[in-house]
Amino acid sequence: MASQFGQLFRIATFGESHGGGVGVVVDGCPPRLAISAQEIQRDLDRRRPGQSRLTTPRQERDQVEILSGVFEGQTLGTPIAMWVRNEDARPEAYEEMRDIYRPSHADYSTEAKFGLRNWQGGGRASARETVGRVAAGALARKLLAALAEVEVLAWVSQVHELEAPPPPPELLSREQVEAHPTRCPHAETAQRMAQAIEAARARGDSLGGVVSCIARGVPPGLGEPVFDKLEADLARALLSLPAAKGFEIGSGFAGTRMTGSEHNDAFLPAAAHAPAKEEAHAPPLRTASNRSGGVQGGISNGAPIELRVAFKPTATIRLPQQTVNRRGEAVTLEARGRHDPCVLPRAVPMVEAMVCLVLADHWLRQRALDALPR
Amino acid sequence: MASQFGQLFRIATFGESHGGGVGVVVDGCPPRLAISAQEIQRDLDRRRPGQSRLTTPRQERDQVEILSGVFEGQTLGTPIAMWVRNEDARPEAYEEMRDIYRPSHADYSTEAKFGLRNWQGGGRASARETVGRVAAGALARKLLAALAEVEVLAWVSQVHELEAPPPPPELLSREQVEAHPTRCPHAETAQRMAQAIEAARARGDSLGGVVSCIARGVPPGLGEPVFDKLEADLARALLSLPAAKGFEIGSGFAGTRMTGSEHNDAFLPAAAHAPAKEEAHAPPLRTASNRSGGVQGGISNGAPIELRVAFKPTATIRLPQQTVNRRGEAVTLEARGRHDPCVLPRAVPMVEAMVCLVLADHWLRQRALDALPR
Amino acid sequence: MASQFGQLFRIATFGESHGGGVGVVVDGCPPRLAISAQEIQRDLDRRRPGQSRLTTPRQERDQVEILSGVFEGQTLGTPIAMWVRNEDARPEAYEEMRDIYRPSHADYSTEAKFGLRNWQGGGRASARETVGRVAAGALARKLLAALAEVEVLAWVSQVHELEAPPPPPELLSREQVEAHPTRCPHAETAQRMAQAIEAARARGDSLGGVVSCIARGVPPGLGEPVFDKLEADLARALLSLPAAKGFEIGSGFAGTRMTGSEHNDAFLPAAAHAPAKEEAHAPPLRTASNRSGGVQGGISNGAPIELRVAFKPTATIRLPQQTVNRRGEAVTLEARGRHDPCVLPRAVPMVEAMVCLVLADHWLRQRALDALPR
Amino acid sequence: MASQFGQLFRIATFGESHGGGVGVVVDGCPPRLAISAQEIQRDLDRRRPGQSRLTTPRQERDQVEILSGVFEGQTLGTPIAMWVRNEDARPEAYEEMRDIYRPSHADYSTEAKFGLRNWQGGGRASARETVGRVAAGALARKLLAALAEVEVLAWVSQVHELEAPPPPPELLSREQVEAHPTRCPHAETAQRMAQAIEAARARGDSLGGVVSCIARGVPPGLGEPVFDKLEADLARALLSLPAAKGFEIGSGFAGTRMTGSEHNDAFLPAAAHAPAKEEAHAPPLRTASNRSGGVQGGISNGAPIELRVAFKPTATIRLPQQTVNRRGEAVTLEARGRHDPCVLPRAVPMVEAMVCLVLADHWLRQRALDALPR
Repeated sequence: MASQFGQLFRIATFGESHGGGVGVVVDGCPPRLAISAQEIQRDLDRRRPGQSRLTTPRQERDQVEILSGVFEGQTLGTPIAMWVRNEDARPEAYEEMRDIYRPSHADYSTEAKFGLRNWQGGGRASARETVGRVAAGALARKLLAALAEVEVLAWVSQVHELEAPPPPPELLSREQVEAHPTRCPHAETAQRMAQAIEAARARGDSLGGVVSCIARGVPPGLGEPVFDKLEADLARALLSLPAAKGFEIGSGFAGTRMTGSEHNDAFLPAAAHAPAKEEAHAPPLRTASNRSGGVQGGISNGAPIELRVAFKPTATIRLPQQTVNRRGEAVTLEARGRHDPCVLPRAVPMVEAMVCLVLADHWLRQRALDALPR
Repeated sequence: MASQFGQLFRIATFGESHGGGVGVVVDGCPPRLAISAQEIQRDLDRRRPGQSRLTTPRQERDQVEILSGVFEGQTLGTPIAMWVRNEDARPEAYEEMRDIYRPSHADYSTEAKFGLRNWQGGGRASARETVGRVAAGALARKLLAALAEVEVLAWVSQVHELEAPPPPPELLSREQVEAHPTRCPHAETAQRMAQAIEAARARGDSLGGVVSCIARGVPPGLGEPVFDKLEADLARALLSLPAAKGFEIGSGFAGTRMTGSEHNDAFLPAAAHAPAKEEAHAPPLRTASNRSGGVQGGISNGAPIELRVAFKPTATIRLPQQTVNRRGEAVTLEARGRHDPCVLPRAVPMVEAMVCLVLADHWLRQRALDALPR
Repeated sequence: MASQFGQLFRIATFGESHGGGVGVVVDGCPPRLAISAQEIQRDLDRRRPGQSRLTTPRQERDQVEILSGVFEGQTLGTPIAMWVRNEDARPEAYEEMRDIYRPSHADYSTEAKFGLRNWQGGGRASARETVGRVAAGALARKLLAALAEVEVLAWVSQVHELEAPPPPPELLSREQVEAHPTRCPHAETAQRMAQAIEAARARGDSLGGVVSCIARGVPPGLGEPVFDKLEADLARALLSLPAAKGFEIGSGFAGTRMTGSEHNDAFLPAAAHAPAKEEAHAPPLRTASNRSGGVQGGISNGAPIELRVAFKPTATIRLPQQTVNRRGEAVTLEARGRHDPCVLPRAVPMVEAMVCLVLADHWLRQRALDALPR
Repeated sequence: MASQFGQLFRIATFGESHGGGVGVVVDGCPPRLAISAQEIQRDLDRRRPGQSRLTTPRQERDQVEILSGVFEGQTLGTPIAMWVRNEDARPEAYEEMRDIYRPSHADYSTEAKFGLRNWQGGGRASARETVGRVAAGALARKLLAALAEVEVLAWVSQVHELEAPPPPPELLSREQVEAHPTRCPHAETAQRMAQAIEAARARGDSLGGVVSCIARGVPPGLGEPVFDKLEADLARALLSLPAAKGFEIGSGFAGTRMTGSEHNDAFLPAAAHAPAKEEAHAPPLRTASNRSGGVQGGISNGAPIELRVAFKPTATIRLPQQTVNRRGEAVTLEARGRHDPCVLPRAVPMVEAMVCLVLADHWLRQRALDALPR
């Protein structure tokens, strides 16, 4: 269960950074969904290293191979296994890790858990594990588009102290996000972010930041009222990404500084609305504001889902650091290896993938629950 | 699955705010744990309404009845059902809700999901559902104490604009938290918070804030490296509480404004440590700082787990609000009913319960996984 | 998980034979299903002790109380908790059990597992635990009728050496089964079974037998091709009943003595069939025989599902038996207590309940999976 | 969930008979288990086609490749992916299947479920899917040996009308089973079974039979008292194998013809026993007979677990058969393709694998549950 995610649209990832490769098995994807390796590859290409000067120079083409579950361009309804070979693993670069616990890495806690040292490249804690998530997320994205015209879009909204002004949630497009290697859609801030990231790399240091995400077209009624609240499952999904340290939905922490009368989202009378879709049984409503972030009481209300994820600065830096080896002795670490000075640009497709996985799962769950005629 | 939580220490809550009562079934609690109804009641008393002038005047004694799974003062290893009758439900107070969607409540999204209106008192979205969580959490707390001397302690660290200075994480005690009805351990801030809450109530408005939580004594090795990261399961647990809108672990959102060299937690050479316990197989290490919040790569590292949860201001206010009825017509709502002007003080035992449930579950999972001799 | 069953229509039972009572929480039942306590009670009345001279004289009215999840005669889509108080528990009758392991009972293995002795009345191993299953099964039965006109019918087909001739599967009715307290629809065999059971009781001995079950109206397409084959989930469901020792679907063990050419079920050309229902997308077919028992490759094929369950003779007998006490010493047991000399008649509603639970769960699973237009 | 099995030792299989290959991901295997590809291969070699003249002539070497989760000869505690390429798939041999529903195959029910025809070689319903189970089962077997010296051994006890006399359960060895290609340890019966199978093949017909299985060294206390009874999980595991139609534990169906006084297993006073292992907390007891089959009340009692599985005759035969095509028209099928005239010999390692998977899972579950000192 440790490496599985989802209840009905369920994925299981496998593989280590320095083994043969990384992959995923998707179980529960409905049959008859048109899908091609190219569509999966598109999202993988946004995640892979070596896309720009802002990311790690590790060279991985990350070419996906679909091992099962797809026949003549359609899903079969059976498990879909996808697999990406590691091509540029350099275990020798990690030789020094045999013995040293890197600060704020998973080395020490992983060894404490498993009782052995898998010193090559971070094992499952490596961001390379997210290849499987992004591949599965691309499938979930395609499913959501087929089911309900849901669109999930993330972008870099903050790097270190640099914050981009919030874009209008209805108008932001993938093209605007992809226009700059930082994946910040605000051109001027993007430019400054890139400079900050390159300066950090030059210094041997690293930066963190915030990825924002919006999901448009989510029908009302997804999510459960108690433990499996939509925001709870989203929080888990996003905190499961490497380096994530915080999650907000809607007004988040800022909302704690408002009063109820300021914070509540007033419902507006229905305009000349399109007739209700199958999923929407209460009258389709709008709200004057969206501090709820598209979710009320754990259940989507039809407004865009808006969330933010905090990523800490990359733990791997070249600057010398004090740490301890396996014998408990103080040592100084000067890390080599190839790493991103800032994970934010590559985190964007990971965030989208996790949001797509949560929404696809809840869509199927709601379909099962809503079995009787209304 | 919608109302279940946990994998090995698993709970299922049931009951509505205005039905016969609320309860929980705990499945997977190890046998031979000494437990009494009084120990469960202690945490329920901290959650129940009517504790102080700061909370709702609804009168509920919330007396727990253990229906099964305990015999002669010990758990049997079989399901433990616990049940609390509703005593002061006043459905007539909700008569107006038959027809109106309250802003930022779950009314509309719940009806969209279930295709019917359960208008009495918020149904499962009511904070009354958390009775079952707190009862189960008390059991988890007892188990954690028996297994590993884990101690979980939450407190109110912010109400609206009022922030308490952070207490020293090693020294804070339950007594300090319980000394004031706000459950803020900083006396002066607590006093001001109480005034702000009473003023909000007088105005017919409401306030939000932040609950902080620490877990001390957690052994290294709990949590899984990928989806079931400890921080991911904690985030889900806490975002599943009513009114929660944000979650941070360790440095959280503030950590995004640091560089890697500032943020990394340096490991310190082991002092003359006690010999490793069964759970700790890597040498027990300390870190010079705890921006990781006790979790690295999803796995506990032995440092205190530190987290924060944002709660929005209560959606129910007496001030008039614009909204819409079930026919889509604009109406003005002037809510009556009995509600907390600020949920923070009562959220403290809820946060502790969810953290205890996550830790107990992961403790059992790690015990299963770590089956072979080291 | 130990006391939970089902993936989407999921139940959790709780309670011991000699605690306050027994109950169940049903999670995942679709909203808007009309249900009354009377409908639940109808199946409980078929399960309860004291129905006839053939069963235990323990007097339990088994009146169900619905604690949550139903409002104004309809399911809410939230957890449905149901509860039956124990009324005629006589723990003193089990005093002797404090110390003795009853042969072929769960006493010894349960103590080995849990490390303690819950000596009163068999704890969770008591057939009283099935109250919760039958209550939940009644709900599943109602759901199946609403969804797809599925009808599940079980009967006693064998007691000891007495076998009833197989009834025509299309024509057998509940009335025929309920016409005799043995629940054998073949009047002459029923009469002889009753005599055999009464004779066994008089001797202080007990009898076993076989319950047969048919499910009519199951649409093709339920069940999964690999681990969650419909017959696999049915087998698990039925082997989880107390005293069950064997399971067959379709031709079962007898089919192993046929050749493939004798055993295969020939498909017949479709007659002037009713147009395909939503669930049936391949053309509705019939087979000339039903040795498959309504399931092929783990998936229902539209033919009646036919299965058989073997129940061993009741372990509790009054005849003296050699056994061992907790100190490992040989002792002679002459059991008192009130028990069924033959569980078969009361097993009939239990078998039906388990089959209904499996089918309802798979119906919802198939609804989720079959999400895209055909 | 459809293609997953187990709760803590959990496997997910993937792959089709005529895609690239078949595989499995094992999640939850404890770290630090010594394992090699050769140990996995040993069981796969017993399952693969082409072993003898009794099985299908399809030529597959079934060479396993371990893709992840093993490093330097030890499990890492992370997901173990294993993969076997298809080498001798001949999709052209199935060209005729595009259009025809083969009797007693999964063709029709699978199409009814998934709404499409994956006509090449039976898809997931192919016995080739069991490659993943056998690979994972080999891992479980190794784990069980490391944990508790459990030994699981299956054999062919019946083919068509030919029944082998039951071997003494304590003495039967793997060598005796493997001595003959039928995997029947009784030499004379084995010889006659081989003749019968070859005669059936020559006629174009097929045979079924029974596989028996014993698990020795299982500690008391495995299994759960209600739904997850050990026999229930075993029944599900074994009925999930292709062509399985029945399951018995201990006395099974034959036990229904005994009285309680004949059937009960008397406990015997403990002899000069070895001191109790960690798993056995009640005094280790023996029983005079083992009609319980090693399980009482769903929980192992320390006696050997004994079970039997009925396999129907292979559905694919060369003799002409009446059936129907996708347009509902009557057609005569004369199947070609390469198939086993009797699956029994190759079913032996499959049965063992499923039993090992169930026992390993329950062993880990019991370790988690039994967390407090006795």
